[in-house]
Amino acid sequence: MKRLSILGSTGSIGVQALEVVRAHPDAFQVVALAAGRRLDLLAEQVREFRPQVVSVGKPEGAQELKEWLRGLPVKICFGEEGLGEVAAYPDAQLILLAVVGAAGLKPALAAVRSGKDLALATKEALVMAGALLTSEATARGAKLLPVDSEHSAIFQCLEGGGRAALKRIILTASGGPLRQYPKERLASVTPEEALNHPTWNMGKKITIDSATLMNKGLEVIEARWLFDIDVKRVDVIVHPQSIVHSLIEYVDGSVLAQLSPPDMRLPILYALSYPDRLEHPFPTLDLLQVGSLTFEAVDRERFPCLEYAYEAVAVGGTAPAALNAANEVAVELFLNREINFAQIPQVIEAGLRGHRSRSGESLQDILAVDREVREELSQTYRDKVRQAS
Amino acid sequence: MKRLSILGSTGSIGVQALEVVRAHPDAFQVVALAAGRRLDLLAEQVREFRPQVVSVGKPEGAQELKEWLRGLPVKICFGEEGLGEVAAYPDAQLILLAVVGAAGLKPALAAVRSGKDLALATKEALVMAGALLTSEATARGAKLLPVDSEHSAIFQCLEGGGRAALKRIILTASGGPLRQYPKERLASVTPEEALNHPTWNMGKKITIDSATLMNKGLEVIEARWLFDIDVKRVDVIVHPQSIVHSLIEYVDGSVLAQLSPPDMRLPILYALSYPDRLEHPFPTLDLLQVGSLTFEAVDRERFPCLEYAYEAVAVGGTAPAALNAANEVAVELFLNREINFAQIPQVIEAGLRGHRSRSGESLQDILAVDREVREELSQTYRDKVRQAS
Repeated sequence: MKRLSILGSTGSIGVQALEVVRAHPDAFQVVALAAGRRLDLLAEQVREFRPQVVSVGKPEGAQELKEWLRGLPVKICFGEEGLGEVAAYPDAQLILLAVVGAAGLKPALAAVRSGKDLALATKEALVMAGALLTSEATARGAKLLPVDSEHSAIFQCLEGGGRAALKRIILTASGGPLRQYPKERLASVTPEEALNHPTWNMGKKITIDSATLMNKGLEVIEARWLFDIDVKRVDVIVHPQSIVHSLIEYVDGSVLAQLSPPDMRLPILYALSYPDRLEHPFPTLDLLQVGSLTFEAVDRERFPCLEYAYEAVAVGGTAPAALNAANEVAVELFLNREINFAQIPQVIEAGLRGHRSRSGESLQDILAVDREVREELSQTYRDKVRQAS
Repeated sequence: MKRLSILGSTGSIGVQALEVVRAHPDAFQVVALAAGRRLDLLAEQVREFRPQVVSVGKPEGAQELKEWLRGLPVKICFGEEGLGEVAAYPDAQLILLAVVGAAGLKPALAAVRSGKDLALATKEALVMAGALLTSEATARGAKLLPVDSEHSAIFQCLEGGGRAALKRIILTASGGPLRQYPKERLASVTPEEALNHPTWNMGKKITIDSATLMNKGLEVIEARWLFDIDVKRVDVIVHPQSIVHSLIEYVDGSVLAQLSPPDMRLPILYALSYPDRLEHPFPTLDLLQVGSLTFEAVDRERFPCLEYAYEAVAVGGTAPAALNAANEVAVELFLNREINFAQIPQVIEAGLRGHRSRSGESLQDILAVDREVREELSQTYRDKVRQAS
């Protein structure tokens, strides 16, 4: 239970803050309120949230409020002094400052001077006296927490979201070179077409995987293990520009994303230099030049491979190893022109559903399944090709 | 200096990893390489990067390489055993696994079993044996670092970027209700038009600030203090959908962003619950519904207020307080229909450039400037209005 003092409780931010408090009665308790106007609303807020102290702008207002709130155990004060009392109220742990304009400066100073953390919606205080406020906050160990959505965004990106409150991973997919091909065209796609990736310059295997969306399926499984998350909470979204490389959603609705030009040297550099970051001599992102980032749903009918990955995880055991082996065989057969593009999912489906599953996941089991699936599929499909020719 | 072992050095990822190493000779040293194909390229890599050990696929290849590299102090091995040696090379601190497909599983296991951190480009290893690899890594204290751009993105969002390598802050601006108004229309904009914000539902003062872009100027100054960053490294970009709330760019070219629907309750909830995150009962972001996120440059000619903020910071001392006071006066005059919309920047300019600057930043100085600017501007502009009528 965090005890809050809210200055500017009848303004736009104050009202929305009390909505947040109302939605989380176990997390927050309002111990002090201050408002300059809308005394009727303030009186309602006092009745609902039961603060210990409340401050209004003028002595007449305080008098009026006293009459309205007769019988309630609340101290009523007013003016600059009252605002100061609410801003540094000893029982409060966090002060939300949401008064309009320069009037917020003195209460902001009072809050940080009392060593309280300050959630700052009144940007004017920092504009007027940034050096003073930040140095006093540092000296007293008071945190400045931004409420402005922009600065909250920056703060969250700097801090990172952590894993505890992670709700969902959203993997982005370029959609590959065949994103806009109608279903009936897929059977006649050549290896050259499938290898012509629109945004990424990669090896052959992964480029074909990208064309079938099997790559995204493998990435769903990869995410399951890297981030210890149920695949039900791993979604895929098509983002043709390959600028947003993936997103994570938190339980509070906040989404974090990482962006850069589609250049594999960037994630390589990050992995090699982690936990540091090194200067990067390659071209960087220019959002003005990019102009627009678009998102669309995956067409799971034209590209069924993604589903097989979810299926493999649901089956468990050695099923993902069978899926992977079947996919490697299928890609090789396709690159050798032994099957057509539309047959790739068929080979994968056959490998996944036909394999003798082992519940164990020892290296021996995994390698045995890998070998069996490869042998069986290669035989089956080469025989088919032989019969057909 | 981090000592690297790279498996799959002649593939797409391997070649790009060596580009990264080449760009950072003081940060990385290659101590081991392995490749299955393209022996000529491998020989070149050995000559350039001078690893202590190198492995190829087949004994014939090893023999050939030995002849090419005669005289160089490099141990040459081959096959599964050679790959295992490079994967767990004792002198290496980080193993980059970038071989294609299932062939990566055994080296991945060898790397984590030797307790080495593993930068993983071969997703197939995790797909086949995720449980085994992750449990062995945990048992030996080996980190798994994703190289796939998607998983790198997720990893970076979870970790956050920190402040040390921060290069630039990019504040997004909706552009306000007048974003598409031609310059000659601005003088006749009514308070009602300026208060009609396209994406955010906010108080009057901030909504007018948003229409003039002064709000973004104040936010630039706010960012300067909250994140202790030179305003030269704080940029502004117009993003009309107000979904991406701001972005940060790191020295390595990676950009992190935070997204959510434009609902102030989200940053309020985050500020109140920080460092925890609480479940959020309000509507969350649906990128499929949003469809497109667009970005455009700020028109600094039509909206000069943003520049005044940079100017105020450059002047320093009490100039930002003068800027703020002038803006508060201007907004009030506009809302009271005493000046027109196009005069708002004029009032701000007059307040900023006309004020008697104080180099000190004591509360007393700041409050004195605030008072002086207000008195002077109110007088000047009310006199003007009186003369005109």
